[in-house]
Amino acid sequence: MNGRLLVINPNSSIKVTQGIDRAVAPLRSAAGPVIDVVRLEDGPVGIETQEDVERVVPLILQRVRETNDAAAYVIACFSDPGLHAAREVAGRPVFGIAECGVLTALMLGARFGLISILQTVIARHRRFLGTMGVNDRFAGDRAIGVKVTELADENVTFARMAAVGAALRDEDGADVVVMACAGMADYRARLADTLGIPVVEPTQAAAAMAMGRIALGW
Amino acid sequence: MNGRLLVINPNSSIKVTQGIDRAVAPLRSAAGPVIDVVRLEDGPVGIETQEDVERVVPLILQRVRETNDAAAYVIACFSDPGLHAAREVAGRPVFGIAECGVLTALMLGARFGLISILQTVIARHRRFLGTMGVNDRFAGDRAIGVKVTELADENVTFARMAAVGAALRDEDGADVVVMACAGMADYRARLADTLGIPVVEPTQAAAAMAMGRIALGW
Amino acid sequence: MNGRLLVINPNSSIKVTQGIDRAVAPLRSAAGPVIDVVRLEDGPVGIETQEDVERVVPLILQRVRETNDAAAYVIACFSDPGLHAAREVAGRPVFGIAECGVLTALMLGARFGLISILQTVIARHRRFLGTMGVNDRFAGDRAIGVKVTELADENVTFARMAAVGAALRDEDGADVVVMACAGMADYRARLADTLGIPVVEPTQAAAAMAMGRIALGW
Amino acid sequence: MNGRLLVINPNSSIKVTQGIDRAVAPLRSAAGPVIDVVRLEDGPVGIETQEDVERVVPLILQRVRETNDAAAYVIACFSDPGLHAAREVAGRPVFGIAECGVLTALMLGARFGLISILQTVIARHRRFLGTMGVNDRFAGDRAIGVKVTELADENVTFARMAAVGAALRDEDGADVVVMACAGMADYRARLADTLGIPVVEPTQAAAAMAMGRIALGW
Amino acid sequence: MNGRLLVINPNSSIKVTQGIDRAVAPLRSAAGPVIDVVRLEDGPVGIETQEDVERVVPLILQRVRETNDAAAYVIACFSDPGLHAAREVAGRPVFGIAECGVLTALMLGARFGLISILQTVIARHRRFLGTMGVNDRFAGDRAIGVKVTELADENVTFARMAAVGAALRDEDGADVVVMACAGMADYRARLADTLGIPVVEPTQAAAAMAMGRIALGW
Amino acid sequence: MNGRLLVINPNSSIKVTQGIDRAVAPLRSAAGPVIDVVRLEDGPVGIETQEDVERVVPLILQRVRETNDAAAYVIACFSDPGLHAAREVAGRPVFGIAECGVLTALMLGARFGLISILQTVIARHRRFLGTMGVNDRFAGDRAIGVKVTELADENVTFARMAAVGAALRDEDGADVVVMACAGMADYRARLADTLGIPVVEPTQAAAAMAMGRIALGW
Repeated sequence: MNGRLLVINPNSSIKVTQGIDRAVAPLRSAAGPVIDVVRLEDGPVGIETQEDVERVVPLILQRVRETNDAAAYVIACFSDPGLHAAREVAGRPVFGIAECGVLTALMLGARFGLISILQTVIARHRRFLGTMGVNDRFAGDRAIGVKVTELADENVTFARMAAVGAALRDEDGADVVVMACAGMADYRARLADTLGIPVVEPTQAAAAMAMGRIALGW
Repeated sequence: MNGRLLVINPNSSIKVTQGIDRAVAPLRSAAGPVIDVVRLEDGPVGIETQEDVERVVPLILQRVRETNDAAAYVIACFSDPGLHAAREVAGRPVFGIAECGVLTALMLGARFGLISILQTVIARHRRFLGTMGVNDRFAGDRAIGVKVTELADENVTFARMAAVGAALRDEDGADVVVMACAGMADYRARLADTLGIPVVEPTQAAAAMAMGRIALGW
Repeated sequence: MNGRLLVINPNSSIKVTQGIDRAVAPLRSAAGPVIDVVRLEDGPVGIETQEDVERVVPLILQRVRETNDAAAYVIACFSDPGLHAAREVAGRPVFGIAECGVLTALMLGARFGLISILQTVIARHRRFLGTMGVNDRFAGDRAIGVKVTELADENVTFARMAAVGAALRDEDGADVVVMACAGMADYRARLADTLGIPVVEPTQAAAAMAMGRIALGW
Repeated sequence: MNGRLLVINPNSSIKVTQGIDRAVAPLRSAAGPVIDVVRLEDGPVGIETQEDVERVVPLILQRVRETNDAAAYVIACFSDPGLHAAREVAGRPVFGIAECGVLTALMLGARFGLISILQTVIARHRRFLGTMGVNDRFAGDRAIGVKVTELADENVTFARMAAVGAALRDEDGADVVVMACAGMADYRARLADTLGIPVVEPTQAAAAMAMGRIALGW
Repeated sequence: MNGRLLVINPNSSIKVTQGIDRAVAPLRSAAGPVIDVVRLEDGPVGIETQEDVERVVPLILQRVRETNDAAAYVIACFSDPGLHAAREVAGRPVFGIAECGVLTALMLGARFGLISILQTVIARHRRFLGTMGVNDRFAGDRAIGVKVTELADENVTFARMAAVGAALRDEDGADVVVMACAGMADYRARLADTLGIPVVEPTQAAAAMAMGRIALGW
Repeated sequence: MNGRLLVINPNSSIKVTQGIDRAVAPLRSAAGPVIDVVRLEDGPVGIETQEDVERVVPLILQRVRETNDAAAYVIACFSDPGLHAAREVAGRPVFGIAECGVLTALMLGARFGLISILQTVIARHRRFLGTMGVNDRFAGDRAIGVKVTELADENVTFARMAAVGAALRDEDGADVVVMACAGMADYRARLADTLGIPVVEPTQAAAAMAMGRIALGW
């Protein structure tokens, strides 16, 4: 097994990029492909609006074009910016963390919920779930209501995630939840313990799928 | 009634822009809003790939921002590039011709078909129909297989549209079809006559809806 | 632009008919088609039961047949009584306010809610949404619980609409709502301000679409 | 077990009424409820257009009101005219043959097809299937293309039904078909033998369900 | 009318089997088929886990094979264990109470709710509803939270059913509910009275459908 | 990384088991978990009927219980026999090849087709796709019509797969296909080359996902 997996964080945050790097660490092995996690230096600090999503797409496509030695790519933003264009450009497997996170959740429960950061992204998520065609398995989408740039207080962030996850479980009927944001893998196990249902960390889900596909060579 | 409707052709083709201008002409009146049809000078000649779609989005958003005196906007490309970001940016109604074309078709038949230009856009259309949540009303999507830049031969183009429309009607069960491309309004009436079922020209559909919303003021 | 749009209020209420007339006033212009709003003198005072719906259909069809100089028709009752039969009979465009109201909402948000008058109509609305095939975009349907004939107290009516709209927004996740009744356009702007999300008045939505189609001539 | 089942043929055809009477004969027993099959003397000879459907509804409702000693009702026309209004009016179980035919088919195969009489009814059937919410189980709807009043030539009719049924099975993937018309029960067994898949006769399906509900008393 | 209907209770509980026997009693008549209700002596006391479901399937298939004189079979467990295999093996109609209960509910309301016994079965029900393709008509599924083996206290059980049914009606929008368990027919009428909406007892629904199909002979 | 992945072939065929073993070989590495492929000695030679599916479930559950040192399990039969019961019993991740194959296809195209072995399994696949809730992404399911036990002639088998795959692509609109059978990985690359669209081998898809989840430890 060889090759290289490029994980692209489309925002410019070093802290988020480090969080993603820690998230994918368990997938690294001496025998396996290298996993490189990079950020877009010219990307925004956080991707919140639909315009933010659109503006990072050309940067992602440029990065994919420049990195023509990668065996596969992960776009590590839950809006999956430029996913289909990147597939067209790359000619090799490209994984979006929203798509992979949701597909992984479909194996872990009958109905999944999304723990989002901001209320304003929920309409975007609905469009994306419609594109995936998985609305029959969807339980709900609730926002913790903390700005991406203000997620630093870990106690507040975790408490909000736990509260929102419990509402998805108890009021919306979710039996699995997806963290609808990159870079928060450190909370995953603790959140699963607290909620008592599986929690999907989407960057891990995507990177794991990418590693499998690199190994298979298709 | 006053105000101004800006119809943006996201490609740079003067010929297509003129075709769109003719399409919306019946909606102009002395008493009504001005309808301006513009092209993106820096846009591609035709929008074919997903990357083409993504690359025109920043140009569209820029044009929307610059034209802050418009009462509404129409994005005249059947991929509806940047539709949701433009709505966010504009703060006024923005209409996509794919969305409006399909919604109009829903009033004209039980199941709609799409007459597309190229086979490669069909997967993109499927994603968009999923986003709209109207798959239960969808009959089929067939391509005429002529490149956007080679649509000049009107006899060939019309014959292909008629053949594809007949297949949508007879094999896929469509009782209304949508022309999945801007700038081809000149064929609409003749195609409807030939097929014997309603044919939606999406730029007209979108511009008509936009004029109505301008008149209502919401 | 010429021609005539006939808006048929299938009940006999003069007050509701006047409300509809005010609703479509912004769409009138010197250059455009005449818009005539008529009531069915033999219709019920209000349409509440399914039997009410069925009983007005022959009256509507008769009126459509008698008015053979109209370029298009709007049936101004949220049950869209006789919509498909009227299309068959008229041979010209016929618009139902429920269909048009919902289609307009699909452009204004990811998920729409319905503000209904009576609890008993909700099952009928569900059947109609199934027919339209738009359940994936549906958030909820809540009744204000005021009889059609008792809607005169505007403060009570508005307060109930605002409460129900807020529940659709906050509990059901609607980001756009449709007023599921004709003749209440006077509340629209105020309701939108109160709720902070778009509010669709369906008679306006239908009449605007009808005017556009008359202008296009298809 | 006692009581009475009223089967209403909404057209005026004596021949069709007799066919329906033969269809329900196997459900009669000395111990069970009486089954009366009646026609609407003022109904049309055959129900083809949507206007035909609408025009028989008041007649059906009148008949239901007049027959207040029935324990249950079957409306024996595949358009289920006035089904929901009749339920409202009757206060006792009312069965539509389209609804019952399709529900029965759901137990007999993974995907059902409809054998319709005329091409023009297919859009109406699609609306009805949307209302039922069973599109995921729907394979196709094909018309034999014989007018209701010209169904007398049994060899022609059967040959067309067999051909259409085979197309539903082989091209559309149906593994069960529903005869989308009342009064043709005489063909059912032969058609099932010819096609090698189950064939649902909808009046029998509805009457059987009605007899069961009468027995249960709910 | 003759023949025999075999109703198989896949658990070993004599009490539940007696409850099922009482449930189907109204369907028995001197002229009609015999209805035999049997239990699986080697089945579990109650079917709760998915493993319980799987383990009774071979027993059911064996019983079907052994009882080759039955005209039809009902599998009286709301998980419909082995339904499709039993159909394959029997070569005669086999009815599952979950399938029949839901299909019957589709005739009684716009959206149905399920009153389940245990929270843990809800994911299984969701898979089954997906298989049936009726999610668009589904309102909710709520558990009374009483173990199958602890249902003996009738006051507690009924109070929980009424509370859960009211929540389905008021919070989830159900206008008909299905008792998602066999052997509880004694509560049906009282529950319907309390809730004011139709209540489907699924074993009765299935047995009634089975009797009809036996009478029809197809 | 350590641990062990147990891949269970639920039939007794040594040849199929060897094919599965070759399929997962690219996923083995010195550093990674051991992958053991086992057959059920008491399973049938091939799983064709629904009864075959049901009969292997207790054997699979027994094997899962006996192998309590595995970190994850793959059930390598495209009917996913006992998948949900095995998850309940194992308390560790269990992967079904049908579920994983379809989920993987969702990342590779807009609409997927299934290449099945026998016509008789198609109804079962439809039920399973309904359970997954992915019908909106489904293009078609076609059988090569070769019995599992007669698949030995590789030229015949491949030619049939290529023909069926081409029909899925050209007639049903699939842009990705899934091989709906275990043990045929040797054909995958050649079939993808021939068809010009991605081909998913489901055992590889499942084993790759399993290895990723083992590495992540959740």
